[in-house]
Amino acid sequence: MIFLESGKKMPRYKVTVAYDGTKFAGFQSQPNQRTVQGTIETALTKMNKGEFIRIYGSGRTDSGVHALGQVIHFDYPSEIPARNMLLALNSLMPLDIEVIASEIAEPDFHAQFNTIAKCYQYRVSRGRFTDPFKRLYTGHYPYALNQQRIETALQDLLGEHDFTSFAASGGVIKNKVRTIYRATVEFDEQHDEVIFEFVGNGFLYNMVRILVATLLEIGNGRRAEHDFLRLFEVKDRQQARGTAPASGLYLKKVYYPGEEKDVQKISLI
Amino acid sequence: MIFLESGKKMPRYKVTVAYDGTKFAGFQSQPNQRTVQGTIETALTKMNKGEFIRIYGSGRTDSGVHALGQVIHFDYPSEIPARNMLLALNSLMPLDIEVIASEIAEPDFHAQFNTIAKCYQYRVSRGRFTDPFKRLYTGHYPYALNQQRIETALQDLLGEHDFTSFAASGGVIKNKVRTIYRATVEFDEQHDEVIFEFVGNGFLYNMVRILVATLLEIGNGRRAEHDFLRLFEVKDRQQARGTAPASGLYLKKVYYPGEEKDVQKISLI
Repeated sequence: MIFLESGKKMPRYKVTVAYDGTKFAGFQSQPNQRTVQGTIETALTKMNKGEFIRIYGSGRTDSGVHALGQVIHFDYPSEIPARNMLLALNSLMPLDIEVIASEIAEPDFHAQFNTIAKCYQYRVSRGRFTDPFKRLYTGHYPYALNQQRIETALQDLLGEHDFTSFAASGGVIKNKVRTIYRATVEFDEQHDEVIFEFVGNGFLYNMVRILVATLLEIGNGRRAEHDFLRLFEVKDRQQARGTAPASGLYLKKVYYPGEEKDVQKISLI
Repeated sequence: MIFLESGKKMPRYKVTVAYDGTKFAGFQSQPNQRTVQGTIETALTKMNKGEFIRIYGSGRTDSGVHALGQVIHFDYPSEIPARNMLLALNSLMPLDIEVIASEIAEPDFHAQFNTIAKCYQYRVSRGRFTDPFKRLYTGHYPYALNQQRIETALQDLLGEHDFTSFAASGGVIKNKVRTIYRATVEFDEQHDEVIFEFVGNGFLYNMVRILVATLLEIGNGRRAEHDFLRLFEVKDRQQARGTAPASGLYLKKVYYPGEEKDVQKISLI
């Protein structure tokens, strides 16, 4: 806990942001790269008359990955009403990031360590050719898809599993066991899209994109309907499908203590 | 008419393209700029083993303006089936242009000179802040809008009028009289957008964007409901509103002889 000169502790802000990931080299700060974290820190630091403000996100998103509801926290050395914080940040930030909610949180709130669940969405466009208006906002799969096969496979994902086969190698996290509370697919005929949603207690690096690529192969019939059960067993990244493109992936919502009921309500297990 | 070495005339192709205008310096070729025309000509010229192919569009679109159905024509020195032309072009072009239709046209078909009508769409997003996913695909108007006032004003646009007040200065076209067959607005509450559509026999430079900016002022109450009637009279560009941003504008459809009935069917006059 950080204290102000007045002896009061610095207020901690919980801020929800949406961003178009296209022009960012991911969420996390990197030298000489345009990142979401760097862009928000620059805006906050400007507000704070040049004194650096560090922010903490619920987790990284990769280059090209979007967010509808990424959550960050930071401490700010003066108590600005939450609504004013939102207005000030939106006026200082580029148009590909939008602050959509702001609140003053408990002083021990932590955007990363307190998460109880996350929801990711993945949009797939199905046209024969890449739609110029969707190329940055969907993955593209122009082949046949059987909805029933995908729905069957999604059932296999529910619950607690070892996702070693679905984690990009090179991660530092040893425990690859995660619980999926919800895994759904919607065939949106009007927009010629397939939309996946996954809610789980945590996701490994590239996990959603590997799951989606594998699901599309199952839907197309190139892979057995219950192949997930086999892939959980073999624990071998080489046997799952490549990685669906970043452009289709959206971090939709991050859940924190107090929202357990919301997660339970949508849970399929 | 151009003849092949064999003595047969070169087939003329009518091709419909959609493009995301964001990364183009408009439709028309310009030296050292990425343009839609230049990009399509480069693809065709590549197909034609380096021999330059000139294309003709139904009209220019400005930098940042999109197309859902721009039409072009060109002559190609060998008779490739229309479907193969579409496949070949799509395989050679960047993902922000998509060929959506291709046919072999009459030898005297001209994409620009034969148009009988065009349809433009303009999308306005209404959120308090700019939605990061809409910033390149809509104009943004976060103020109150009265649908009834806009609908009343749209009625005044129907029919034949002198649009001098709504043409960017500097154009070479002297006759500013155009006929509007259809002018509508849709309030899309689900997406928090307002969508205008205009069908007319022709549109002056920037005309749709100036009409939209003026319509928004009427909808907001900053301008009289029947101000269009006055603006038609005064013939003064200074008295209409600025220009709505290019990002919201879409060339939706171009009509040619044989499609008179389609225009009539949707006409409101």
